[in-house]
Amino acid sequence: MLKNKKSPVACDWKCKPDNGREIPAENISRLYRHKKDFSWQGIEKEKYKKEDGDWADIARHTLIGNHAETAGFHLRYFEIAPGGCSSFETHKHEHVVIGIRGKGICVVSNKRYQMRFLDILYIAPDAPHQLRNPFKEPFGFFCVVNSKRDKPKILK
Amino acid sequence: MLKNKKSPVACDWKCKPDNGREIPAENISRLYRHKKDFSWQGIEKEKYKKEDGDWADIARHTLIGNHAETAGFHLRYFEIAPGGCSSFETHKHEHVVIGIRGKGICVVSNKRYQMRFLDILYIAPDAPHQLRNPFKEPFGFFCVVNSKRDKPKILK
Repeated sequence: MLKNKKSPVACDWKCKPDNGREIPAENISRLYRHKKDFSWQGIEKEKYKKEDGDWADIARHTLIGNHAETAGFHLRYFEIAPGGCSSFETHKHEHVVIGIRGKGICVVSNKRYQMRFLDILYIAPDAPHQLRNPFKEPFGFFCVVNSKRDKPKILK
Repeated sequence: MLKNKKSPVACDWKCKPDNGREIPAENISRLYRHKKDFSWQGIEKEKYKKEDGDWADIARHTLIGNHAETAGFHLRYFEIAPGGCSSFETHKHEHVVIGIRGKGICVVSNKRYQMRFLDILYIAPDAPHQLRNPFKEPFGFFCVVNSKRDKPKILK
């Protein structure tokens, strides 16, 4: 638990507060403060996927799921730079996508949607999908998934 | 599946498109378009809880969970009017709360946080909690929970 105002609001294993002691991942209540630029205190920006592939210019923040939380779902924030896209893929697990920053295009099966702030997209199991940003501003969105899920199959 | 632009973007059992035919709940991909006022096409505003209790001036929109979705989680949007609050309660299931509209106060165990836009709060199992709006504007937030969850115990 955090003891004073100088400590960060949220941490993971690698986080060292002022006293230099590492704070372990624990299944405890925590606030992840938004830093006003679509990043969060205590949450590091990650690569979208470990392996390179058909995706481009997309970053991931794992907000809920890396800190020993027991919830049956994970919450991530993705941001696609202008011209970028996620993988074109399919899997058995569902996605819930919430538009947060700018706008983007979501291709789901044979449909194509423009997504803006607070539009919510449910992607059903096995639906081929891809998110794209053909616009001039970053496209940021939350994506909620089951914590236990199958590996995506990349489509061509 | 939706056939033309006149059909609503999203529906549930009670929804009648232009041709008067009811669209059944199906586990299919769907977009719930934000109507720019913290409500969504095809999603009805509900009472916070069926039973009256210690809560006041709070409304619920069930965004994901009422349309035959198979995801292991539900997504709801709650809005607390000025002076209102949620129940003070505890349960075994986790909450993930995402600040969206205005600001509010979250009491979790022995801590008290002010939440604003995109602040993210993880509430661990069995942590007593309550959300309150002592401010002059509505306080709106998403709350993600496991689809299978225990019933809350109301605290006094």
